[in-house]
Amino acid sequence: MAEKMGVLTVESPAKEELQKTSGLSMVVFSGDLDKVLAAFIIANGAAAMDLPVNMFFTFWGLNVLRIDGSTTLAKPKTMMEKMFGWMMPKGPNKLTLSKMNMGGLGTMLMKKEMVKKNVYDLPKLIRTAQEQNVRLIACTMSMDIMGIRKEELLSGIGFGGVGTFIDAADRSRMTLFI
Amino acid sequence: MAEKMGVLTVESPAKEELQKTSGLSMVVFSGDLDKVLAAFIIANGAAAMDLPVNMFFTFWGLNVLRIDGSTTLAKPKTMMEKMFGWMMPKGPNKLTLSKMNMGGLGTMLMKKEMVKKNVYDLPKLIRTAQEQNVRLIACTMSMDIMGIRKEELLSGIGFGGVGTFIDAADRSRMTLFI
Amino acid sequence: MAEKMGVLTVESPAKEELQKTSGLSMVVFSGDLDKVLAAFIIANGAAAMDLPVNMFFTFWGLNVLRIDGSTTLAKPKTMMEKMFGWMMPKGPNKLTLSKMNMGGLGTMLMKKEMVKKNVYDLPKLIRTAQEQNVRLIACTMSMDIMGIRKEELLSGIGFGGVGTFIDAADRSRMTLFI
Repeated sequence: MAEKMGVLTVESPAKEELQKTSGLSMVVFSGDLDKVLAAFIIANGAAAMDLPVNMFFTFWGLNVLRIDGSTTLAKPKTMMEKMFGWMMPKGPNKLTLSKMNMGGLGTMLMKKEMVKKNVYDLPKLIRTAQEQNVRLIACTMSMDIMGIRKEELLSGIGFGGVGTFIDAADRSRMTLFI
Repeated sequence: MAEKMGVLTVESPAKEELQKTSGLSMVVFSGDLDKVLAAFIIANGAAAMDLPVNMFFTFWGLNVLRIDGSTTLAKPKTMMEKMFGWMMPKGPNKLTLSKMNMGGLGTMLMKKEMVKKNVYDLPKLIRTAQEQNVRLIACTMSMDIMGIRKEELLSGIGFGGVGTFIDAADRSRMTLFI
Repeated sequence: MAEKMGVLTVESPAKEELQKTSGLSMVVFSGDLDKVLAAFIIANGAAAMDLPVNMFFTFWGLNVLRIDGSTTLAKPKTMMEKMFGWMMPKGPNKLTLSKMNMGGLGTMLMKKEMVKKNVYDLPKLIRTAQEQNVRLIACTMSMDIMGIRKEELLSGIGFGGVGTFIDAADRSRMTLFI
């Protein structure tokens, strides 16, 4: 890294290193409404401050990206894959709180309070994130295990494996696992 | 970033970038005793190593900062806000374990073991953090949703929104979501 | 940090700062199969990209490192320590999912799908991590509280307190709490 510059020896400032660490990369592992809300509020906050943001959805977090409706699949699902699909919440409106869900009552009350206090709901936070160019990436390995197909997920998202996440995170100033 | 310096072109080392990334910023989302203990042990450890530490309390994490006692509120609470207040643990002594709580028995046994093994309990960890100038910040948006007022929280803490967190985290070397 | 260089004043690029921040440090707090799988997939992914990786196991995460079998202990356990030992899962094969465990059925089905989709199981992911020189560190304070002894844990791991984690994390580009 040392470069001769005339008679002076100057350590080159490894500028690429610096320039590449900016913004936020997060793993969204959870599919709980409260944690996913926190993830998108942080993501939108960072994006509003002009920072690049990557959200990598894996395991239960994949449910956030699911479309609520039936889709014609190119490749039929196995029995097990269908079961996973039925048991997991289909999209942002179906997620529930990690605490005080109380059979859905707690989740409903929390959503009501959010409306009353003028806080964006999850579908709107997701749209805003997409409008602000937050990169939403679905983990292909989790999709494979759970039998979730690209056709079943939100349009405009990316797909990638763990390498995609590491690569993004290694260029980010902030990293979170949610 | 390139600056002409006499005949030599030197890339400026973006030193502000470097200098500003130090220390630790964490989101304390959880209100589970075990996770909050981990958060404060990490925070105090970093502070003891002279690193700046920011703890941003949001959602269930806000309960950590609640005072256990009645307070006269400037603005009365709605029914819903009162309900949230009753259902959530009021302060560090009321938190329970995320696992093996067993109706409070597991939490009690864990606390006993901590005393026996000379590990600080949560109230003492919080006091130590404040003494070590760890910045405790309550998320105003979560306070608004849950109807928690400033008068109901520990004194000496700060208040802020997601921008406050991002700003602190972007200047930190380490970021955690707990 | 400013150095006189002939007539030019150049800010030295604080290169040590740069060089020391590389790789990934994570706290593995959770002992849930799904979260621990995610932790090891991310760790192995980063290690495969030649990045230094530190995994710090604390609280329930310690269970990942436990050997499933009886061990002769140098110092006998107290009744309470024995109880903790019995109630917590002993090693990677005993962990269960954080969601949809359904008395073990969900965990079994998930493991079956992972075999079918050619995803490494947890014991293999741990071995791979060790082969790739991922540093596995057991939190000595948690070991003390829970009464877990070194003889009861996987060989080839390190031991340390919160300072060990902070020190590693402060040299890492990426930090996660899982």
